[in-house]
Amino acid sequence: MDDEMGLRPIGFLSTPWHSLKECPRNGRQPKPAPVCQATVRPEYRDGLLRVEGFSHLILLYWLGPVATPEMRFTPPFAAEPAGLFATRGPKRPNPIGLSVVAFDGFAAEGVLNVRYLDCLDGTVLLDIKPYLRSVDCEAEASMGWLANHATPRE
Amino acid sequence: MDDEMGLRPIGFLSTPWHSLKECPRNGRQPKPAPVCQATVRPEYRDGLLRVEGFSHLILLYWLGPVATPEMRFTPPFAAEPAGLFATRGPKRPNPIGLSVVAFDGFAAEGVLNVRYLDCLDGTVLLDIKPYLRSVDCEAEASMGWLANHATPRE
Repeated sequence: MDDEMGLRPIGFLSTPWHSLKECPRNGRQPKPAPVCQATVRPEYRDGLLRVEGFSHLILLYWLGPVATPEMRFTPPFAAEPAGLFATRGPKRPNPIGLSVVAFDGFAAEGVLNVRYLDCLDGTVLLDIKPYLRSVDCEAEASMGWLANHATPRE
Repeated sequence: MDDEMGLRPIGFLSTPWHSLKECPRNGRQPKPAPVCQATVRPEYRDGLLRVEGFSHLILLYWLGPVATPEMRFTPPFAAEPAGLFATRGPKRPNPIGLSVVAFDGFAAEGVLNVRYLDCLDGTVLLDIKPYLRSVDCEAEASMGWLANHATPRE
């Protein structure tokens, strides 16, 4: 089973950040959020048909490789450790990053302008999904131990 | 790069659906949504510390293997084809499924009760992330060509 679960890059992300130290804590922290690009490889561009009507997308990307996942850790802003699955930290058993981004249209064929990324320039893109408020939006969701650390919205 | 991007199961999902035909179109379609389980392997259970305060989680899981991704397809409810990246269909270059689920607490150690899954019983679990309304919620997002096909909320 494990051997079958290999991933293939479908493109890459262009962001202003070239080291982990520069990366913001999350994509909503920089105000205003810079416009970044998601470039889709030519062989996958057919998959972009009718993407243009969505104001927001979900991007999945590769954060790894991770030698040893850190199952508990203390984020810089916290006093006590939390389980990895109670955080969005990168050292995960499967280091797949997820961002809900605003989609600002195409910069060129196969190149999407997006806002609210927080990852390194050159990050490998794995998937683009349409954001569907009918199933993805939980405005009243409680944020557990992160409630006091939430990034304020604009 | 490709070779390094291997995934490891962190657990599995238990749902009422044993064939693709039985699976609902999305996790919000069954009303009421059945309570499903996400079982985390013992070696990853340390990562669940402080998950209990979150009302909602994001689950990533493996939909594959997919021999050939279908870059354009026509969903059952649609008249015309759409690009794969404008859909949540399963035949993706990287077949990673994503569901925002309600978290109803632990059924046993390492076993989470969740609602709003739509996948097959036994699906491989890849990641659990806390749902953060501060970065994941877009209540006004426009749904493009899927706007007229949205599943109504309860």
